[in-house]
Parts: sequence; C-alpha cells; structure tokens
Amino acid sequence: MVNDSNLGWLLLTNDDGIEALGIRLLVEMLNKRGHKVVVFAPSTNHSATGMRINLMTPLTWRFRDNLRDEWNITNQDNLHLIELDGSPCDTMIVSLDKGLEHILPGIVPRMVVSGVNLGPNMSQDSYHSGTMGAAREAGLYGMPAIASSLTSFEEEGMERAVEATVDVIEQALNVLPMNPENLRRPSVDISAPHVSRWPNIESSPAWQNDPEEALRNAFRHGELMLNLNTPPTWNGEYQITRLGMRWYRDAISFGSTTNDEKTATFTIGAASIDHTPVDKSDCDAVMENKSSISCLPTWPQTHPLALDDRLLTWSLESCEGKYPVWLQ
Amino acid sequence: MVNDSNLGWLLLTNDDGIEALGIRLLVEMLNKRGHKVVVFAPSTNHSATGMRINLMTPLTWRFRDNLRDEWNITNQDNLHLIELDGSPCDTMIVSLDKGLEHILPGIVPRMVVSGVNLGPNMSQDSYHSGTMGAAREAGLYGMPAIASSLTSFEEEGMERAVEATVDVIEQALNVLPMNPENLRRPSVDISAPHVSRWPNIESSPAWQNDPEEALRNAFRHGELMLNLNTPPTWNGEYQITRLGMRWYRDAISFGSTTNDEKTATFTIGAASIDHTPVDKSDCDAVMENKSSISCLPTWPQTHPLALDDRLLTWSLESCEGKYPVWLQ
Repeated sequence: MVNDSNLGWLLLTNDDGIEALGIRLLVEMLNKRGHKVVVFAPSTNHSATGMRINLMTPLTWRFRDNLRDEWNITNQDNLHLIELDGSPCDTMIVSLDKGLEHILPGIVPRMVVSGVNLGPNMSQDSYHSGTMGAAREAGLYGMPAIASSLTSFEEEGMERAVEATVDVIEQALNVLPMNPENLRRPSVDISAPHVSRWPNIESSPAWQNDPEEALRNAFRHGELMLNLNTPPTWNGEYQITRLGMRWYRDAISFGSTTNDEKTATFTIGAASIDHTPVDKSDCDAVMENKSSISCLPTWPQTHPLALDDRLLTWSLESCEGKYPVWLQ
Repeated sequence: MVNDSNLGWLLLTNDDGIEALGIRLLVEMLNKRGHKVVVFAPSTNHSATGMRINLMTPLTWRFRDNLRDEWNITNQDNLHLIELDGSPCDTMIVSLDKGLEHILPGIVPRMVVSGVNLGPNMSQDSYHSGTMGAAREAGLYGMPAIASSLTSFEEEGMERAVEATVDVIEQALNVLPMNPENLRRPSVDISAPHVSRWPNIESSPAWQNDPEEALRNAFRHGELMLNLNTPPTWNGEYQITRLGMRWYRDAISFGSTTNDEKTATFTIGAASIDHTPVDKSDCDAVMENKSSISCLPTWPQTHPLALDDRLLTWSLESCEGKYPVWLQ
C-alpha cells in the first residue's frame, strides 16, 4: 500500500481489450496498493491497430463494473470500468476530450497507462502498436503517459511485467501534479525550455540550465512518453533505452482458394525476426532479462512540439539509478 | 508524354480504396503520360487507419483489371490493378514482401505513391493518416515513397492535386535508379552518411560534405519520404515545408440510446480546427494556395535509421527552386 491518501486517478487503456489478462492484473495490483483507477478500454482485441481512429461513426460505450466482482478487487470504490467499441486511440480521444467528464463528473485523470500488452513493442513496433498508439494519443492531448508490454506472446510472466509497471507508475507519480497541467492543451507554448527550436539549432539550448526539469516538464505536458518492455524472465533490473533494430523477415505466406484461380490469400506474420545489436536499445535490454524504459518523443520530428535530439541524448546518457534520472 | 521509353514501374496505393476518385485520376494521368503502374490498394475505404496491420489473418486479393475498361486508360499493357481486403500498410507489406513478385513475376517497383487522398494530411494527421502510413511502411521496407493529399473533403479540385502529384513524381524519378537499391533492406548500413549518429551529435556530421547527396540517398533508401498536400485552389506554386500546428477542438459529440440508460454513443469529428501559424509549415502553405512538400523522416527519433535534426534543417532551408533542392 502506498502512503499518500490522495493519489488521484489513473486512466488505463490497452489494445488487447478490457478483459485481457494484462490490464486485469495491472488493475488488481494498483487497486491493492490503494490507487484509484478508471479503465476506459476497447471492448475487444485491437492488436497492431496503430493509431487508427474512427471518425464520424457512433461508438458505443458500456459500464463494465461487473468485472469488479469477477476480478480480485479489494477497494471497489476506487475502480470504474468502461468499455468502448473502438480503437485504443478512440478510447483516449473520447475519454480525454470530455467523455470521462460526461460519464463520471469530477474524475480527472492524473496520468494515462496503456497495457500491460501481451507481446513486445520495441523498435519499429512503435508505429504499429495500439498500446503505444494510445499512450501517444494521450500525449497529444497533453497528458503524461506510459505504455507497457510483456515481451512474450504467452501469458506466463505477466505478473512480473505488472510489477515492473506499477513500480514505474509510482515513481512517475512523484513528479506529477494532482491535476494534469496541460489536459487538452489549453495554451500552446512553443518557447517552453523543453521544446525544440527546430529548424533553429541553438548552440546553447534553452533546456541546458536544467535538463532534468525540462524532461520532467516534457513528460508532464505530454511531449515525452515512457515505453516499457519487460521480459517474462525479468531479473528485477531496469535499463534506460532507445529504440533498437529488429527485422521481420518473410512476413508473408501465400495461400489459395480453389473456387477462383484469381483469388488467393496472404497472411502477415514474420517467419523470423532478425536482431541487429544496438547499444542501450530496448531489444538488447530485454535480451539481457532487464525491463527496458525508453523515453520517447510524442510528436513527430519537424513538428513545433518535437524534442531536440540533444535533449534526448542527455536523457539516454544520464542514467545513474534504476529509473530515468529526471524521475528520481 | 515523358520521353524516357523505359520508366520502370510505379506501385500505387491509397487509403480511400481502389475505386476512389483520387487514385483513379492519378492512374489515368500517369498512364496518359506513359508511366507503367501497378495498383495494389485496399478494396474498401480505410481512412484514418494509421499504420494498422492485420496479423495472422488471411487477406484476400483480387485482380481488378476490369477497371481498365471503366477508367480512361490509353495504354492498357502499362497498368495492373489488384485489390486487397486489408489496410493501407497491409497492401505495402504484402506487395513488397514478395507478394507482387508472386502475382506478377518480373515487375519490381521503382517508387511507391500513396494517394491522392481526399482530405488533408498535415501536422499530427501524420500519425492517423492511412495514406501517410502506407508511404512510411514502404519506407520501412527500403522503398522511396511519396504520400499525396487534396486538402479538401470535396472532390472538386482533385485534378489539380493530381497534376501537382504527377509533377513531383516525375521530378523524383530523375534521382532514382531503375531498380530499387534497398528493397527489403538486404543490408543495413548505419554508417551511411545520411543516417543520424544519435546519441552521438558529431560536430562535423558525415553528411556535411554533400548534404544534397545525403538527402537523395535517404529518399532512395526509404529513410526520407515526401508528403504532399495540395489545396483545391492550387496556384501552381510549391513550398518546401515542415509539419505545422492544427488543433481539433471539441472532437466528441454525445448521443444516447433509449433502450439502456447505461449505454450511449460518442462520435469523433472535430467541431472546429484551430490553426496556429508556423513559419514554412504545411498548414500555412496550403492556406496560401500553395502545394506543400514536406520532407519527413521515415523512422522514429532514437531509432538508428532516424535522420539528424540538422540535416532536416538543411533540407528545409535550402529551398532554391520549386522542388526540394536535392531533387533538382
């Protein structure tokens, strides 16, 4: 149990769907430790859906508080469960753009957590992952966000990934205000020290006087997200990482149907994955049985709210403890 | 008609589906000008699907050569049409990971073009756009790629956007070899001059001696893509741009169903879009009736194949003619 009697609300989503084991175990452990949680997750599995959104389509939601009885929940008042017939990004847009206020007036989330996903989200998975897509979407809406994944497609070891995730969540809450400062981006300050001045590359960047505070502000304002990957064989250590390199080879298999010779099917699913070693990369860290914590920019390069390459270098290379140094 | 008798094959996709007006007009104009084109596009509309992919699901494809008769096609031998029951990214993974070789042996595409999309793809649309997602996926597979959009949701003006697109396609072909050098990334060279050395920020970057050649190689190898946005009121000018800032406000509307008081619906679709002016941005260029050409990195920041912030600055600021200077 954490000590703080007023922890604020965490907003949880995922891409495996509200009934998946990863989010269930995460909710159970957070609840046991006294956290208040709102789940606003897809009703069904949306793996590999990236940042897909549904536009101009009515999306149905339902309370799923019945899961409080099925799951191992100690403090029932500290948990609300809602499912949406939509994608992971839809759950963030709907909940953060006033849907949560509409359904549960007075509950304002302090941070977003997406996961724990069944399967790795490393390297270029960054683009295809629904788990990471939801966390990034929350960042676009000005929210601090963490994505978290178990690097196996088997459920064994999920408890360990949940432990690693809860540990980082509690560490992150230490640097966050009770009310999110930048939800729905009420004002946009492109002169904030943590934001890149690109295309200008200043010789003395504005973040230079206090890079730790710049990174904390980037996280608080949704410009920087955390991406965790924990192997089922987690040894209890963390490593601060960058994106690594993995290659899906021979991703396509061919099939054919007999009734029409011009119709056939393809199935995507890599025959093999090649790993190219990269120093301090997510892929390499999990191969050493560590939990990987990548600090990733939310916005794409050349966008005014993107982060300076050099600030990201500082973030990667200033790893003194188990967490990113700016979270300590 | 272009002069070169051997232009190689262009691979086209989109997110509006194979029967959409934008891809039809693009195919018709390319065909009229002597280009050889393979369309490998989604069978139905997949707007806003981002980089969604379908894993471990059989995806059916069909020849759609019947469209050659419905459309205004002069050189029927120069056109193949295939539809896939999948997302825009699926069309790229399936076609580039040997599906095209399987269906049409001997046809190897020289470049990928995605579009022309009905609707703008600027600023953070970059993440949600299926049009841009397909071009980025082609880049991940080592292919030079262009995404192109009409900035209106009405079809009027599509001919102008197609003209702007064909012009840039023909300019880009000038710097491309007949056979793609890096299709499926047979070898990975992270010491190539165009690739960032991040987290090292060298005082004399490797691209410095010849930034134009570095940018051309980034495009040839799939590390840099072009993103076009053309307004229906296009004045015939181009501007080299960066991502700008636009904000979707009050994206959610609420509805309710009468048969169950705890079920209701949300619909995503912005009530208003706020524009924040940014110098040389895509959003600003199209407001001035120019066609916007953004040179965007394919890989995410902190990935070993990402591009140096400073090379992107050089690219933005070295705009001497109508096209990016490295395309001239």
